[in-house]
Amino acid sequence: MHGTENSAGAGTSGEPAAPGPLDAAELHRLDAHWRAANYLSAGQIYLMANPLLTAPLRPEHIKPRLLGHWGTSPGLNLVHTHLNRVIKARELDALCVWGPGHGGPAVVANSWLDGTYSETYPDVTRDGEGMARLFRQFSFPGGVPSHVAPETPGSIHEGGELGYSLTHAYGAAFDNPELFVACVVGDGEAETGPLAASWHATKFLDPVHDGAVLPVLHLNGYKIANPTVLARIPWDELDALLRGYGHEPIHVAGDDPATVHQALAGAMDGALDRIAVIQRRARTEGVTERPRWPMIVLRTPKGWTGPHEVDGQPVEGTWRAHQVPLPGVRDDAGHLRQLEEWLRSYRPRELFDDEGRPRPDVLACVPEGSRRLGASPHANGGLLLRELPVPPLERYAVEVGKRGSTLHEPTRVLGGLLAAVMEATAERRDFRVVGPDETASNRLEALYDTTGKAWQAATLDTDEHLAHDGRVMEVLSEHLCQGWLEGYLLTGRHGLFSSYEAFAHIVDSMVNQHIKWLRTARRLPWRRPIASLNYLLTSHVWRQDHNGFSHQDPGFVDHILNKSPEVVRVYLPPDANTLLAVADHALRSRDYVNVIVAGKQPGFDWLSLDEARAHCARGAGVWEWAGTEDGTCELDVVLACAGDVPTQETLAAASLLRRQLPELTVRVVNVVDMARLLPSGEHPHGMPDPEYDALFTRDKPVIFAYHGYPWLIHRLCYRRAGHANLHVRGYREEGTTTTPFDMVVRNDLDRYRLVMDVIDRVPGLGVRAVALRQAMADVRTRHHAWIREHGTDLPEVADWTWAD
Amino acid sequence: MHGTENSAGAGTSGEPAAPGPLDAAELHRLDAHWRAANYLSAGQIYLMANPLLTAPLRPEHIKPRLLGHWGTSPGLNLVHTHLNRVIKARELDALCVWGPGHGGPAVVANSWLDGTYSETYPDVTRDGEGMARLFRQFSFPGGVPSHVAPETPGSIHEGGELGYSLTHAYGAAFDNPELFVACVVGDGEAETGPLAASWHATKFLDPVHDGAVLPVLHLNGYKIANPTVLARIPWDELDALLRGYGHEPIHVAGDDPATVHQALAGAMDGALDRIAVIQRRARTEGVTERPRWPMIVLRTPKGWTGPHEVDGQPVEGTWRAHQVPLPGVRDDAGHLRQLEEWLRSYRPRELFDDEGRPRPDVLACVPEGSRRLGASPHANGGLLLRELPVPPLERYAVEVGKRGSTLHEPTRVLGGLLAAVMEATAERRDFRVVGPDETASNRLEALYDTTGKAWQAATLDTDEHLAHDGRVMEVLSEHLCQGWLEGYLLTGRHGLFSSYEAFAHIVDSMVNQHIKWLRTARRLPWRRPIASLNYLLTSHVWRQDHNGFSHQDPGFVDHILNKSPEVVRVYLPPDANTLLAVADHALRSRDYVNVIVAGKQPGFDWLSLDEARAHCARGAGVWEWAGTEDGTCELDVVLACAGDVPTQETLAAASLLRRQLPELTVRVVNVVDMARLLPSGEHPHGMPDPEYDALFTRDKPVIFAYHGYPWLIHRLCYRRAGHANLHVRGYREEGTTTTPFDMVVRNDLDRYRLVMDVIDRVPGLGVRAVALRQAMADVRTRHHAWIREHGTDLPEVADWTWAD
Repeated sequence: MHGTENSAGAGTSGEPAAPGPLDAAELHRLDAHWRAANYLSAGQIYLMANPLLTAPLRPEHIKPRLLGHWGTSPGLNLVHTHLNRVIKARELDALCVWGPGHGGPAVVANSWLDGTYSETYPDVTRDGEGMARLFRQFSFPGGVPSHVAPETPGSIHEGGELGYSLTHAYGAAFDNPELFVACVVGDGEAETGPLAASWHATKFLDPVHDGAVLPVLHLNGYKIANPTVLARIPWDELDALLRGYGHEPIHVAGDDPATVHQALAGAMDGALDRIAVIQRRARTEGVTERPRWPMIVLRTPKGWTGPHEVDGQPVEGTWRAHQVPLPGVRDDAGHLRQLEEWLRSYRPRELFDDEGRPRPDVLACVPEGSRRLGASPHANGGLLLRELPVPPLERYAVEVGKRGSTLHEPTRVLGGLLAAVMEATAERRDFRVVGPDETASNRLEALYDTTGKAWQAATLDTDEHLAHDGRVMEVLSEHLCQGWLEGYLLTGRHGLFSSYEAFAHIVDSMVNQHIKWLRTARRLPWRRPIASLNYLLTSHVWRQDHNGFSHQDPGFVDHILNKSPEVVRVYLPPDANTLLAVADHALRSRDYVNVIVAGKQPGFDWLSLDEARAHCARGAGVWEWAGTEDGTCELDVVLACAGDVPTQETLAAASLLRRQLPELTVRVVNVVDMARLLPSGEHPHGMPDPEYDALFTRDKPVIFAYHGYPWLIHRLCYRRAGHANLHVRGYREEGTTTTPFDMVVRNDLDRYRLVMDVIDRVPGLGVRAVALRQAMADVRTRHHAWIREHGTDLPEVADWTWAD
Repeated sequence: MHGTENSAGAGTSGEPAAPGPLDAAELHRLDAHWRAANYLSAGQIYLMANPLLTAPLRPEHIKPRLLGHWGTSPGLNLVHTHLNRVIKARELDALCVWGPGHGGPAVVANSWLDGTYSETYPDVTRDGEGMARLFRQFSFPGGVPSHVAPETPGSIHEGGELGYSLTHAYGAAFDNPELFVACVVGDGEAETGPLAASWHATKFLDPVHDGAVLPVLHLNGYKIANPTVLARIPWDELDALLRGYGHEPIHVAGDDPATVHQALAGAMDGALDRIAVIQRRARTEGVTERPRWPMIVLRTPKGWTGPHEVDGQPVEGTWRAHQVPLPGVRDDAGHLRQLEEWLRSYRPRELFDDEGRPRPDVLACVPEGSRRLGASPHANGGLLLRELPVPPLERYAVEVGKRGSTLHEPTRVLGGLLAAVMEATAERRDFRVVGPDETASNRLEALYDTTGKAWQAATLDTDEHLAHDGRVMEVLSEHLCQGWLEGYLLTGRHGLFSSYEAFAHIVDSMVNQHIKWLRTARRLPWRRPIASLNYLLTSHVWRQDHNGFSHQDPGFVDHILNKSPEVVRVYLPPDANTLLAVADHALRSRDYVNVIVAGKQPGFDWLSLDEARAHCARGAGVWEWAGTEDGTCELDVVLACAGDVPTQETLAAASLLRRQLPELTVRVVNVVDMARLLPSGEHPHGMPDPEYDALFTRDKPVIFAYHGYPWLIHRLCYRRAGHANLHVRGYREEGTTTTPFDMVVRNDLDRYRLVMDVIDRVPGLGVRAVALRQAMADVRTRHHAWIREHGTDLPEVADWTWAD
């Protein structure tokens, strides 16, 4: 290898063991624990019988499909062993986030060793019989997943999609001052964008009110089939990089176990001593300068202690160790023999007694009770969750006198409520609001009356609202916002993510994984419910007229509604009071992902708070006051709407129809909870057919003005009796920098087009309807000319109010 | 400010000008250019008349809506001015990627100054009349967007969504050895994950075959409402970070124009001298060591030269300068006066002659012809695009004797074709394949017979296929893969992105922006068509049984199909030969985003190459050989399918029905091109109703086995006459680590369930059908027991082949 060097503090194979903090007995015991974990990791990948090798290994002991990732497992086991040591010695409350979560066997093995696996799954006892079950169930139908997963005790981090470990670790540490969060970062994962950005979280962690995060960058050198970037840059370049991130790196490298044990023990001690000093200085001496937090760089071979060569090819220390290093053990006697030698190299008889129970030396390093990493209550956050003190909405609701005549910025109204929650949690510190530099832009500034924006970097006199202990988090990275909040929620706290609607797509894949986590965790009785992940999507498609096409995308809702119905909820409150009612519900809910889409621009007030509560509880309902049904005439048409701007356009259309075609009988239906449109068997909020038919009819034309892509409504409603009569208007990917009203005109969602739609679809209308249709078309033509001349919307649009 | 320092090389306000490479005349001319660009930037934001301030400024000269981002514009103008200087002096072929693209006014201003704006849009002449048009059209209905956009000459980078500038810059530089790509990185953008990861592209840029990238990290200190992280860490920490990325940073800081001009000119000269040395050493002296590329850190005030204070609040040098620093100019006489003072501070009479034409001093630094940044042919890549030499498919097609009896890994077959394209472009070097460490996992290893994997970091003896000049790009970051490929395609080359299906969601938001770019560019006659962005999504949902739930997500297709129909294409080839036919079409196409979903696991061969070509050309068709229509009996049911695994299950169901219920008349329809299902008015590939009806009937039950979320098919087909009879099976978010067949059983997509669906929906079937239905249910029960016992699929499933 050229261009890389080992640090001075660590040895390499063959050298005498470097001095370190471990005496011979402790070294022996730690190594025994590590060997046991390695044995159990390999065993899970390969064995379905004969777990203790009490008989010579035969093909029928081997699983028919060999699945699992060996390569990263020895490194994870090593870190786990040494975390055990320091947690026990220092009586730490600890949590570990395992970035290379493909190494599921390692984390499961350690949980079995520390007893938490058997406590969680009593049939997997900590003895030979349980070991047999442990091995067999791994990556086996009906068993447990191949990666670290919700099923794994002690984990808050699914190990399948890489890149989010460090941001999860920080999320767990915020407002947990007594918590020590270790985080193993794989060198593959370190190439991802979210991980690369996560290092800068050092500028957001308050040494007084937050816990400590200790990143362990594990350089095992390889991804699936390639070397990793960070393992192949010179030592001084890597060291500079990590110092640039704000860390003091401690380097450990080697391939001789005893040497590495000593060096890693020394590194852990050094890091924890340093953390203790940082925290003491900040907490008792009042030091406010941003600390340089320690971290560990651990460079060990991939697949360490596994087969060195297979079929003449080097395996240990190369990418070939990534998954199953000996693929042919069931059919190839040589591979089988090599597997047996490999497994016996851990000397299982020394590690497990005749009943297969770990011997005392193996368990000597394991902490007690909830200090065990597998048993950390922070990894099962519902255990720690408290009810969020949401104050009465009455204090924040807007007065609605004449409907549709007063304007409020809905998110600003919500800001008052969020500020009250922030204030009510000032002591508890279990509520945070995250956003990519948009909290003020999204009109939530009231929050700054109660807390600041978390910031540990340098400040200037002109700065506003920055605070070491702030609980608003602003960083220009949706990935960090999402990961921080996920880590915060998974460890039993509450929060909200406010984002521009279009850029929520940046975290599509992250929220996928969080939804998968919640869906699986809900099926595990021992996992307690956690607070929902609440999105406030604002600066939405219809009011990004000023930023233009790049900022116009309502598709996050579509993405979410593809996911597990037991988890996902989508709300489109049409005004300020409905936003309050929806947010109140979302903030109190558990185990959901709630997506709330609401505008920040001034919008009309339609419903009083009581009406809003009742309407949101139903999720969809008739707005009698907006229609012209009086019980005497047959209904002609339903005007449905979802979303604030579509609701405004629909009411404007209803108003036009009432005045211009008073003989028409119109019903206005507003939908807040999108899942109500689904059949009752498809989503817990789905509406039974009779209820749907009562709202939308089975046979009348329905003109549906929807906030997003129109086909979403069809996808939700295609099984309904009246579906053939459903005509949806929405965003059709027509946008640019223009005026607000031009946005709806471009997408045929404007009031005039909706009136034309009604006339086109209600049979038997007379000559006045024909004239009205032409008048509507004429206004649209006039609109186009007007905006090019004046740059603003037509006065009759800009000045419009609802007149009932 | 504590914790930050200016570098030694730059001065601050009030000090005597630091020495530098500029003589007084050149300094004066550069400053004139900069002032002109600043004047034009502010003018675009504010003025709709009186562009040259020939009259005192009055409210009616001011736009009714003030939109635009002033804060970043002076910095962009400064960089542009100095790029002009070095491009002209050194006769460079250059391109600049403007990361802070919200500063649209700056890039437009420079393009107007260098004449390219008027060449592109002849009505916007380079004189007072044109200046009036330039000002008025900015962020005005019918005008140009607020951000750098496809409409902006010289740009390949939409400035709306932040984070992708540096990866685009690298993509542009690959295989462009004579190109100099400058890239302004905003300090807000630098907080994003994709940007943070992009710095490591230094390990992938070959100084021999690739051009140079010069990042200019612009620290103006603020985002919308917050300071930026990189502007608020100490100088030594920032310097270490950038060295850790592999750069040699050159620091420029200050707020005195003359000083900064000198320092920046010196920095540009230093950087370009250094680049020249690196390239000479690599190209003529054979040096292979990875170079430390230069970069510039430019620290200047946000909104520099704009209003220093407004209403008693500091603005210049703070976040308040982000957008419109003087918001009240139309109504507030004080603001109006302040705006006039601000605009006159640039001394427009010195900059523009009586006709409003820029004076010679202003234009002295502007290069000639295609060296002008606004005129770079690389920014309009279609100008440079060559036809891709795709060899005859016959060489790579698989022989199909008896259908459904031989197996091939489709992506491995495709690998042969891609390798041939790679070989045919060995001299031209205009084709790359990118992937997140999955090229081999995705069975495309044949590529390595023709090229290596790009890698400039250290190597070891055990490494395979790494090469300085490799044109396969592997990095564990979907963001980098996407950005590199976008930059490569936008500058007129070809490529393919292979990814695990589930993790394509990581780039949802990036591909949104690319699709928006293509949709807009297609409407601009001067933008020439570029090669399509081709995705190969493999390791798909049905065959991620081993990696489990986190790796199972087919929703990228849903995301894509929400987007502009003129751009998006989705193909699900069911076997190896159809994959070849689809890929051939995609690789030759222009201005599309083609998504191809195809398996890497062994799958049955169904069609010969000729059949595959014909089938793919139709996009959807009847597989007569698989059904039982003989023209004598009325059709009973249509079995439709899309995707390789659903096709296999459908044919297995068809086979069961043929043997067990021979009296049933069955048609099998396979869909390759998903957009065919849309009505003809909704997508260019949409099928007219009569054609759809002829395939699927208007009244027979259709059992559709689809690869992804089943409701996508309903969303595509809801307008069809036969929609009420359409029953779709697909992925319903039920997954874990299990067997391949269990994945389809869990989601009710298996052959047995499909047979049951047929029996449930075809009326008038007799007692044999009832018995068959029970038998099918029994096999499913047996399946569940079998996999838990054996860990493998039922033998009758594992050994199944099509028997016709």
